[in-house]
Amino acid sequence: MPPVVALLTDFGHQDHYVGAVKGAVLVACPKAVIVDVGHEVPPHDVMAGAFTLAACYRSFPAGTVFVAVVDPGVGSERRPLALKAGRHLFVGPDNGIFTLVLGDGGRPRIHEITNQKLWGPERSRTFHARDIFGPVAGRLAAGIPLAKVGPVVRDPVLLPLDPVRQVSAGEWSASVLHVDRFGNLTTTLTVAQLADVLATVEGDPNGLVVAVEGVVMPLARSYADVAEGEPCALVGSSGRLEIAVHHGSASRLLGAGRGAPVAVRKAFSSRP
Amino acid sequence: MPPVVALLTDFGHQDHYVGAVKGAVLVACPKAVIVDVGHEVPPHDVMAGAFTLAACYRSFPAGTVFVAVVDPGVGSERRPLALKAGRHLFVGPDNGIFTLVLGDGGRPRIHEITNQKLWGPERSRTFHARDIFGPVAGRLAAGIPLAKVGPVVRDPVLLPLDPVRQVSAGEWSASVLHVDRFGNLTTTLTVAQLADVLATVEGDPNGLVVAVEGVVMPLARSYADVAEGEPCALVGSSGRLEIAVHHGSASRLLGAGRGAPVAVRKAFSSRP
Amino acid sequence: MPPVVALLTDFGHQDHYVGAVKGAVLVACPKAVIVDVGHEVPPHDVMAGAFTLAACYRSFPAGTVFVAVVDPGVGSERRPLALKAGRHLFVGPDNGIFTLVLGDGGRPRIHEITNQKLWGPERSRTFHARDIFGPVAGRLAAGIPLAKVGPVVRDPVLLPLDPVRQVSAGEWSASVLHVDRFGNLTTTLTVAQLADVLATVEGDPNGLVVAVEGVVMPLARSYADVAEGEPCALVGSSGRLEIAVHHGSASRLLGAGRGAPVAVRKAFSSRP
Repeated sequence: MPPVVALLTDFGHQDHYVGAVKGAVLVACPKAVIVDVGHEVPPHDVMAGAFTLAACYRSFPAGTVFVAVVDPGVGSERRPLALKAGRHLFVGPDNGIFTLVLGDGGRPRIHEITNQKLWGPERSRTFHARDIFGPVAGRLAAGIPLAKVGPVVRDPVLLPLDPVRQVSAGEWSASVLHVDRFGNLTTTLTVAQLADVLATVEGDPNGLVVAVEGVVMPLARSYADVAEGEPCALVGSSGRLEIAVHHGSASRLLGAGRGAPVAVRKAFSSRP
Repeated sequence: MPPVVALLTDFGHQDHYVGAVKGAVLVACPKAVIVDVGHEVPPHDVMAGAFTLAACYRSFPAGTVFVAVVDPGVGSERRPLALKAGRHLFVGPDNGIFTLVLGDGGRPRIHEITNQKLWGPERSRTFHARDIFGPVAGRLAAGIPLAKVGPVVRDPVLLPLDPVRQVSAGEWSASVLHVDRFGNLTTTLTVAQLADVLATVEGDPNGLVVAVEGVVMPLARSYADVAEGEPCALVGSSGRLEIAVHHGSASRLLGAGRGAPVAVRKAFSSRP
Repeated sequence: MPPVVALLTDFGHQDHYVGAVKGAVLVACPKAVIVDVGHEVPPHDVMAGAFTLAACYRSFPAGTVFVAVVDPGVGSERRPLALKAGRHLFVGPDNGIFTLVLGDGGRPRIHEITNQKLWGPERSRTFHARDIFGPVAGRLAAGIPLAKVGPVVRDPVLLPLDPVRQVSAGEWSASVLHVDRFGNLTTTLTVAQLADVLATVEGDPNGLVVAVEGVVMPLARSYADVAEGEPCALVGSSGRLEIAVHHGSASRLLGAGRGAPVAVRKAFSSRP
């Protein structure tokens, strides 16, 4: 079973950056299987990178090494990190891109990359993905122990996340965490949190409604549960409540983007 | 010779979808070589996916398993399919995305995917590419027999295709099937159909002209047969008549998109 | 160590072109590891392809075969080439796409691809990447000697490059070679040329300033050496002088694109 190195960046596909990182991984680990998660994270949008990484890493084989680089602070004092969370390894800048992965629990082990022997042959102050992260990911894929990269880090940078809050006996507030290509809105409310809310209405999805930008919609099981063009809320594939429009774009229909408030309410609760 | 799994979707590159599918394929078949055909099929455009798949699958090694997912109906009652056409295997939704592959003949064997033992560990109503299609493709790549996925299907969904028709003794009508990134227009007229038309003028390409949006152009052998900026018709790499502009965009010059009528006429025929 | 075939094209991700080339490579060399450098070179922009290729190929393992196809003249008389420069191999059209790689020295060996036995099974006048370049790259990756492809070429097409010139005792002129996704401007001035210029101020970066579109900026070591929103010049990861804005876009701030003049001046020189 060849080692897998999966890449997620904001480098786009028009420049040499993605190619150079792949070359650097292969030089460090010729047997590595390189997999593109994606390179169209919006430039410098660390939160979008954090979401995308967290939404897919569990689908990969145990031992997969992720290189996650959205790195506006490259060349500054921000630390390069390598870490293990659950059964997967991660390499990238210490700027919050691992916030959601670390929030998944699993006793992560986090190390700063200080061992320059593991770096690649090229050195620059603007392209650590090629010079540090790719080569270190390759070495980890080739089997070096995580602790070899450098000392333990106990205070990784974490992005602030809007907490999900209960605002009244019958209402909970969350917000939009990510807007995808299809206009689906992923919210901060996890499936575990939704289960707690559902318990207050005896587990009956019809006991809850969801409101976004003044539009109230049902909690559905799939897009097809509502008419074409109609919005609904449902548990999305990333394990969070998602707002979608059957054969349409929730983002466009509702005019909602990242950070937009999302309310989950008891269906028959009166509202002040 | 490692098994190849080739992916074609409308997932784009900014979200976690492509990564999650690849992870799911690798979990099901760690030795699989994953190849991206492309993930920028216009969202929900099943016809564009059908064309792109049909235009490239024959270039791949025998035994390649294609995951083709443009799936606006995910979570509804549409069936998940696995099929073998010629020497290649295909997995995806039963919504017409295999229309052109099935039209190539070769006695396709089509099965509905009902065997949940072959599905992946994650289950959702919105992401069958990760939960069903990717894992089943991995299993097929690893060698399980096609019939294991479920029962035979005899009535796959097929997209309606404008037929190529002879409209008079000297004129045939076709239409634009696909517009590519360069503005080339691929038509519905296959190279076999063109051969029949050519036979009526004793095989002489100069005996035919092609008209699109009122512009008449010659049948050429390559773009360079006409002056820069001039349009021509030629047999394209997908085995169909194509409209192109030398060093330019036929789509822009002619103002023609998918569905635009294309006429092939005898060069000296009078026109009513 | 499996052979690596790396692909750089202007094919985009919405059509069948990228998939077909990959299939053709795998048919010619089933063990090849296919790596995408990128497919979003602006359509028909040979210079952008030449820059991107030159900026990343040295990061790849020795023996990597690059397929570089930005080919507006496909089907005309332009020659198909295969060449070895340094420790890497390259296949593509003879239209200048190898200009910067060949400028790197290393006694390149250049051959015209005339041996049709090495071509793929499909033949067209519009898709040599699938029919010629991909299959030949696969064969080279599989180990055939370069000379098998055809006769030596001594006059490859080279793109004209603005030379870096000393315009006065204290000023040198270069120009913008490439604008990347982040708005960074890579210039024609190489790190070796910059070293010569620095020698005139005793190696002190503070002895030089850089001017683009009337804006004068310091020579920095990393983006973070200037305040957010401020421009600076620095040695970029491609081994050339680069103009960047800390947490911003130099292209947007300065209104500069490819070909824009870049002046490097002694910091205290008077200017006529």
